[in-house]
Amino acid sequence: MVNEMLKRETKRAELRERIIAAAEAELIEKGLSGLKARDITSRAGCALGALYNVFDDLDMLVLELNSRTLADLGNALSSSVPVESSSGRQVLQALAAAYTDFARDHQHRWMALFEHRLPEGKYKPEEYRMEQTVLIDAIVPSLKELWPELSKETLAMRARTTFAAVHGVVLLSLQQQFVGVPLKELKSEVEALVELLSRQ
Amino acid sequence: MVNEMLKRETKRAELRERIIAAAEAELIEKGLSGLKARDITSRAGCALGALYNVFDDLDMLVLELNSRTLADLGNALSSSVPVESSSGRQVLQALAAAYTDFARDHQHRWMALFEHRLPEGKYKPEEYRMEQTVLIDAIVPSLKELWPELSKETLAMRARTTFAAVHGVVLLSLQQQFVGVPLKELKSEVEALVELLSRQ
Repeated sequence: MVNEMLKRETKRAELRERIIAAAEAELIEKGLSGLKARDITSRAGCALGALYNVFDDLDMLVLELNSRTLADLGNALSSSVPVESSSGRQVLQALAAAYTDFARDHQHRWMALFEHRLPEGKYKPEEYRMEQTVLIDAIVPSLKELWPELSKETLAMRARTTFAAVHGVVLLSLQQQFVGVPLKELKSEVEALVELLSRQ
Repeated sequence: MVNEMLKRETKRAELRERIIAAAEAELIEKGLSGLKARDITSRAGCALGALYNVFDDLDMLVLELNSRTLADLGNALSSSVPVESSSGRQVLQALAAAYTDFARDHQHRWMALFEHRLPEGKYKPEEYRMEQTVLIDAIVPSLKELWPELSKETLAMRARTTFAAVHGVVLLSLQQQFVGVPLKELKSEVEALVELLSRQ
C-alpha cells in the first residue's frame, strides 16, 4: 500500500518535470505570448488534462519557469563577480555585463520575468517573491562600498534604480526599439553607463 | 464636378479624424493589446469597413496614433526646458521629469510607442521614423555641453543610453514590476539617476 502511494508520487513528480521541461522548451522557442497549454502537453507527450492535475493553471506553471530562470540568472550573476579584492565599481561592471549576456542569450526566458502578469486578484506565492530579490540583493553591497554614507533604505532604493537603468538599456537594445542602442554597441554602452553610475 | 470631389474629400478627411479620435479614446481606456477595429468603428459610429477605406490596416492606424503621441511628448519635453542660461544638467533634469510625468499621465499611449510591432516584412514609413528621433534629439545638446570633448557619434550613442536608463526606471516603476521603485519614489529616483549621469 505504501509502496503503491510511493509509486504514484514518483510518477507524478516525473510527469511534473516532463511538463516543466516541455514548457521551458516552448518558452525558449516561442516566447511567453506564444506559450499554449496544448503545445506544452503535446510536446511532453501527455494529455492536456495532465497539466491541470499537476499545476493549478498555466500561470502557476509560468511562475515555476520564472523561478528557474531567476535561479539561473542569480547563479550567472554571482559567478560573474571577480574573486576578492575587487572594487565596488568592478563588481557592478561584472554584474551588469553578466546581466546583459544572460538577457541576450536567454531572451525569451528573461523577458518572461517581466511580461508575466497574474490575473487581477491573484498574488504570487511568498517564496517566489523572495526569489525575485536576487536581482537587487546582488547590487547592494557594491553600492554600500561606493557610498558608505547612504542609509540602508536609500541604498535599497538606489539598487533598484541602478538595476532599472541597466535593464532599460538592455531591453530597448535587445527589442531593437527605435531608441535602443544598436546590439553591437550594447555591452560597451552598459559599461559606460555603469561607469557613470559608480563614480564617487 | 470639382465641387463633388471636394465634398467627397472633405467627408473622407472628417471620417479619418473621427476614426483616429475614437481609436485614441479606445487606446487610452484599454491599452494597445485591447485595441480592436470593431470597438473603434462602433465608437466612431461608422461601419467596420470604413476603417479599411481610410487606413490600410489597424497597424497603420496605430502608427498614426503613435505619431500623435510622439508629437505631444515632443511638445511636453521641449516646453519643459527652462528658459536660457540653464546648465546642461538642469536641462537634462527638466527633460527627465517631463518624460516621467508624460509616461505616468498618458500610460497607455506612451506604452503603445514601445509595444507596437509591425508584422514581419513591414516597415515604418520614413517620416514616422524621423519623428521618433525627437526623444533622442532633445538630449544631445545638453550632453554636448556636459562633455564637449566627445565626438558626435559618441554623443548620439550616449543620448540613447541616457534615454534608455531613465526609460527603464520609469517603465519598471509604472508597470509596478517587482524590481521597480515604488511610484511615490519614482520622481526622486529619476532625479538621483540623472544627477549621477550628468556629473562631470
